[in-house]
Amino acid sequence: MYDVVIIGAGMAGLTAGIYAARANLRVKILEEKGFGGQIVNSLNVENYPGFSSISGFALAKLFYDQAISLGCDIAIEKVIEIKDHSVITNKQEYNAKTIIIASGLNVRKLGLEKEDVLVGKGISYCATCDGNFYKDKNVLVVGGGNTALEDALFLSNIAKKVYLMIRRDEFRGNQVLVDKLENIDNVEIIKNALVKSLIWDDCLKGVTYQQGDREDELDIDGLFVAIGRIPDSDYLKNIVKCDKDGYVLSEECETSKDYIFVAGDIRTKNLRQVITAASDGALAATKAIKYLLENK
Amino acid sequence: MYDVVIIGAGMAGLTAGIYAARANLRVKILEEKGFGGQIVNSLNVENYPGFSSISGFALAKLFYDQAISLGCDIAIEKVIEIKDHSVITNKQEYNAKTIIIASGLNVRKLGLEKEDVLVGKGISYCATCDGNFYKDKNVLVVGGGNTALEDALFLSNIAKKVYLMIRRDEFRGNQVLVDKLENIDNVEIIKNALVKSLIWDDCLKGVTYQQGDREDELDIDGLFVAIGRIPDSDYLKNIVKCDKDGYVLSEECETSKDYIFVAGDIRTKNLRQVITAASDGALAATKAIKYLLENK
Repeated sequence: MYDVVIIGAGMAGLTAGIYAARANLRVKILEEKGFGGQIVNSLNVENYPGFSSISGFALAKLFYDQAISLGCDIAIEKVIEIKDHSVITNKQEYNAKTIIIASGLNVRKLGLEKEDVLVGKGISYCATCDGNFYKDKNVLVVGGGNTALEDALFLSNIAKKVYLMIRRDEFRGNQVLVDKLENIDNVEIIKNALVKSLIWDDCLKGVTYQQGDREDELDIDGLFVAIGRIPDSDYLKNIVKCDKDGYVLSEECETSKDYIFVAGDIRTKNLRQVITAASDGALAATKAIKYLLENK
Repeated sequence: MYDVVIIGAGMAGLTAGIYAARANLRVKILEEKGFGGQIVNSLNVENYPGFSSISGFALAKLFYDQAISLGCDIAIEKVIEIKDHSVITNKQEYNAKTIIIASGLNVRKLGLEKEDVLVGKGISYCATCDGNFYKDKNVLVVGGGNTALEDALFLSNIAKKVYLMIRRDEFRGNQVLVDKLENIDNVEIIKNALVKSLIWDDCLKGVTYQQGDREDELDIDGLFVAIGRIPDSDYLKNIVKCDKDGYVLSEECETSKDYIFVAGDIRTKNLRQVITAASDGALAATKAIKYLLENK
């Protein structure tokens, strides 16, 4: 019987482990892939306070080492289901007094050749994280929802020129944001258009795109992909309440079950960053500790 | 005219500065004393992810350097009042499109001789932060409110023995917690008692205390002071809504004014740690950035 089973060894899960272990709890962390979560794809992280510049992988390794050295036990297993206090993986079953969900999310990619290797070399999935690397440069935002609109607005204050490309004729996002963007000098909206391929040498140089019958090129330094994110919450549907997109409904890291807590990108929240994920981990663990002590 | 004036250069304010500066905003940070806030009094921080062990001062210096290198402008001035978009200090007046309140709080001390120099050498004001340093040791918690009760409960799972000392006959805090503590084997409640002095050599060794007419000694390794915290919010009374204790009422770092945001220990929140303060800073800055872009 574990005091707490943490699902996910991203930055939220590892921080929850650090806090739980320091409170003397017996902690198991279950991770499907490798530690660190999405941040390991970032070549350069400049907005986690304490590190002016560090690779996402190196930062994740520090979190991981800290959790391990404090006594967290981490296993590479995929969680299939949670039934009451039992966490069932592809290999075995764990009994848990409390559970912290921190399995994160996946970004939707364009699916273009070389997209993966150009991440951090011109391609980004997070304007708040990486916008600052494109001061006075030309960037393209792809997407038609609020994230794309907000990213374009955010980048218009940093980049020289912001192209915003949408597949359809109309944005799905907030019309107020669309109106705003249409009146910003360095923003250009390209409708009914689709990125076809990436142009690169050692880093991204541009894209080709199709608009109606016409194919054209765009010289850009940065491509911000904002076409959707998929929370990793399929295994949760019957145990805690999620919203229609699959995010776990949360109030201060509490879920609809009193012994299950949630941390990081998988929960409904305003800002998804390493620092906010880690903060969630600390809060979720603290609430789990309190639950355990009060129900001893 | 600044895009954002941040009040306080603790971990919340510095992180807000890092995020705002990376979004290309013109940032002024005003700090009354020195940078870092409360954490600079911690000799050893082990729960800020990324650093397995670092002094609070060294960690704060990293935050400070990062904010400065990104272009934040920090001045040592005491904020007296906020009037509309004007932040008035003891030296001058700053016009701000947005304001982030991050002036933190002060812990109430016992006021005993050597109390200050023994902080981090046996004296702590935060059980979640420092409890882990007292595994299988004897600790004393002083206080009668919920913080003291929760600290004693938290420490009972880590320390060998937990004394809980209260000045009066009854606790002010939650009776459920009192009942719980009364039934934990390694917890001993000492009522109607007052710490009179500290016993130390290179670190804390014990306390003397008065109970009625009787004076006695207690051998302890750790003393957790939980007699209250005072948010530094006097200058805010007429500008944003605060609760009866002086904490700024906040919903996801928003205040009762749309152009004023709040981050860190000064706001109503569940958990006050470096990691949650920094997360607040990131969120408050992101909201300020959004406000500026949408109201451009």
